[in-house]
Amino acid sequence: MRTVQEHLAACLAAVGPLPPLEVVLPDAVGCILAEDVLATSDLPVADLAATDGYAVRAADIAGARPDAPVTLRVIDELRAGAVDPIHLVPGTAVRIASGAPLPTAADAVVPIEQTDFGQATVAVRTASVEGENVRRRAEDLRAGEVVLPAGERVGARQVALLAAAGRGRVAVHPRPRVVIVSVGDELVEPGRRAEPGQVYDANGHALATAVQDAGAATYRVAAVPDARRELRETLEDQLVRADLVLTTGGLSYGGNDTVKEVLAPLGTVRFDNVAMWPGRQLGVGHVGDGTPIFALPGDPVAVQVAYETFVRPALRAMAGYADLYRDSVPAAVTDGWYSPSGRREFVRVHVTGSPAEGYRAAPVGAPASLLVSALARSNALAVVPEDVTDVRAGDRLHCLLLDS
Amino acid sequence: MRTVQEHLAACLAAVGPLPPLEVVLPDAVGCILAEDVLATSDLPVADLAATDGYAVRAADIAGARPDAPVTLRVIDELRAGAVDPIHLVPGTAVRIASGAPLPTAADAVVPIEQTDFGQATVAVRTASVEGENVRRRAEDLRAGEVVLPAGERVGARQVALLAAAGRGRVAVHPRPRVVIVSVGDELVEPGRRAEPGQVYDANGHALATAVQDAGAATYRVAAVPDARRELRETLEDQLVRADLVLTTGGLSYGGNDTVKEVLAPLGTVRFDNVAMWPGRQLGVGHVGDGTPIFALPGDPVAVQVAYETFVRPALRAMAGYADLYRDSVPAAVTDGWYSPSGRREFVRVHVTGSPAEGYRAAPVGAPASLLVSALARSNALAVVPEDVTDVRAGDRLHCLLLDS
Repeated sequence: MRTVQEHLAACLAAVGPLPPLEVVLPDAVGCILAEDVLATSDLPVADLAATDGYAVRAADIAGARPDAPVTLRVIDELRAGAVDPIHLVPGTAVRIASGAPLPTAADAVVPIEQTDFGQATVAVRTASVEGENVRRRAEDLRAGEVVLPAGERVGARQVALLAAAGRGRVAVHPRPRVVIVSVGDELVEPGRRAEPGQVYDANGHALATAVQDAGAATYRVAAVPDARRELRETLEDQLVRADLVLTTGGLSYGGNDTVKEVLAPLGTVRFDNVAMWPGRQLGVGHVGDGTPIFALPGDPVAVQVAYETFVRPALRAMAGYADLYRDSVPAAVTDGWYSPSGRREFVRVHVTGSPAEGYRAAPVGAPASLLVSALARSNALAVVPEDVTDVRAGDRLHCLLLDS
Repeated sequence: MRTVQEHLAACLAAVGPLPPLEVVLPDAVGCILAEDVLATSDLPVADLAATDGYAVRAADIAGARPDAPVTLRVIDELRAGAVDPIHLVPGTAVRIASGAPLPTAADAVVPIEQTDFGQATVAVRTASVEGENVRRRAEDLRAGEVVLPAGERVGARQVALLAAAGRGRVAVHPRPRVVIVSVGDELVEPGRRAEPGQVYDANGHALATAVQDAGAATYRVAAVPDARRELRETLEDQLVRADLVLTTGGLSYGGNDTVKEVLAPLGTVRFDNVAMWPGRQLGVGHVGDGTPIFALPGDPVAVQVAYETFVRPALRAMAGYADLYRDSVPAAVTDGWYSPSGRREFVRVHVTGSPAEGYRAAPVGAPASLLVSALARSNALAVVPEDVTDVRAGDRLHCLLLDS
């Protein structure tokens, strides 16, 4: 029997950060940068007006007061985006829009509300100091400076900076493309009619959602029956677009070992009884030309536990994240239960509280029953160590926060 | 001058939860349920084997011990998905796969590893109690029961439950469709060559990313020049697919009031000088047949502050969330600064710490400078109240956590 830690190590060893790919900015969103992005020019490239008003020489209006305004001749007007240089001669002003480049020899901008809004001449009512209301060239970025380092996630604020620096493309670790195959004769697509004995394919939809939440792209394949030829053909069809294949079900170690039998000739996949509950039978390895594959159980609760324990950390490693794991907090359980000996148990709980006052974890549903309804109402998984069989009210367990 | 609170109230009054729409399960992901979802049948619909093994009558193997196994005749085999009912006569067993419906009159499943794996007959080495390794009919959901209540967000665990309950479609508040228009003669698309005086359109890309992060769908329109006809045509073209329109820039209260002039005949949009920094000029109202529109400033830092303050809460209201706001924490600032009088200031800070030990907020870049590089390196906005002009090191400010 393999430990959880050993199986996780095998899963992480089977994958690695996807090779850098240069993509257009919108496709970089949510990805991890695979390069130190350098500024190719200063930002701003010139001194700019920081407000609407009049570009002046501060020395010309040194004596301006509300009761003694200084009047300057307005020699021109500059809108944002103006590209022709203007030179400011002493005693004059240029009407200027916020964001427009300052005329040469101007060193301050008087906000429009401190003037009489003049057209041919303008009366300035307050003095300015040099640099006032001016956005200095390169005050944001200097050419050659690192805009954002490799390893940074590209979110809205990072996109603002990359775009402002003029980058239309950046190198990122692309989103992993994950193919999901649910295996089982009993599976029916939700929304269709199920005969007694059939069950709806919860795993395909739930895994696709979880994989997307981790920032990966999912290709869900409809459920395939427990038939060797169909499963083999499905896998061969899908491999071309997969960075990772996930199968659920088809792993009974009694009768129908479809997944094991199909994968044996297609690649090198190792199956183990892993010391966890729910879970047990799990597979990891490669198929085709080295595409990683994880074989997960068929039970929907066991699948989400296996996703949290093995798949999500692997997806984050592929996407280039340094931090692979969810936040967890220690929480006192509100009720006790018996936990299987020699297996690490993951129990659906609802965690409340705060670090200041401490956390409490209430089991949702009976811990021994694998209820999907309890899974949906939980917000954390309490982790019971392998050697603990008797969990008592008040015991503190590490709880994995599922919405973190 | 309007307060931040007044402008936020106007923004929220201009929108509302989008009307419920029935969508297929994959399209419901990330949305808020607009109906109480009821179970249409029991889950499971029948008693099922919870493990691979042999379905038995517990009474038949009451005396089984490792040194005195009980032998039963194997009368059939049941795979998962089997739909034909089987009746178990006393003294017999049915080989059964995990997930298969129990034969009538069977009341327990003996795990395969507690037997000799027999085909025609099976030797059972341990006794069972009634119900052992059986997943009881309706133990997860009872027909008519509320599976998930309206107001719940559809994530991976909720999808598992909806799919398991057979729901192929659910009613949700759909994702808001947001059209984003950047206005300005000076704007150039990132990746193209910028002349001196031109600036790259950071707002379109950054807003599109922020809007997506909030779960909405974005239609970014390339930057349009500060020209009335082009802006009007762009708005008229885009209205048909918009639940909300956002404009950035074109709001100078000096010269080029393109946005104001274009919007005046198209709808009822009110422009105000809002008592905040960065920000100032902001608009809110409706265009066309009542599509809400928010006019935001042109500066990229001011745009992200306006997004956090007004747009994100409005998007969450449209998407049906009850909780509209990001988490915030009180944090002691590491350095002081002068803050404008009579305006609520939002300063880019990097927050560290924990609730237990307290939080610290270090300003990123000079608070008075609107640096995109500082925005990208910050993880929070410190909020300085309107009446505070002198922030000192050690003062505690509320900080909006931007990654929460």
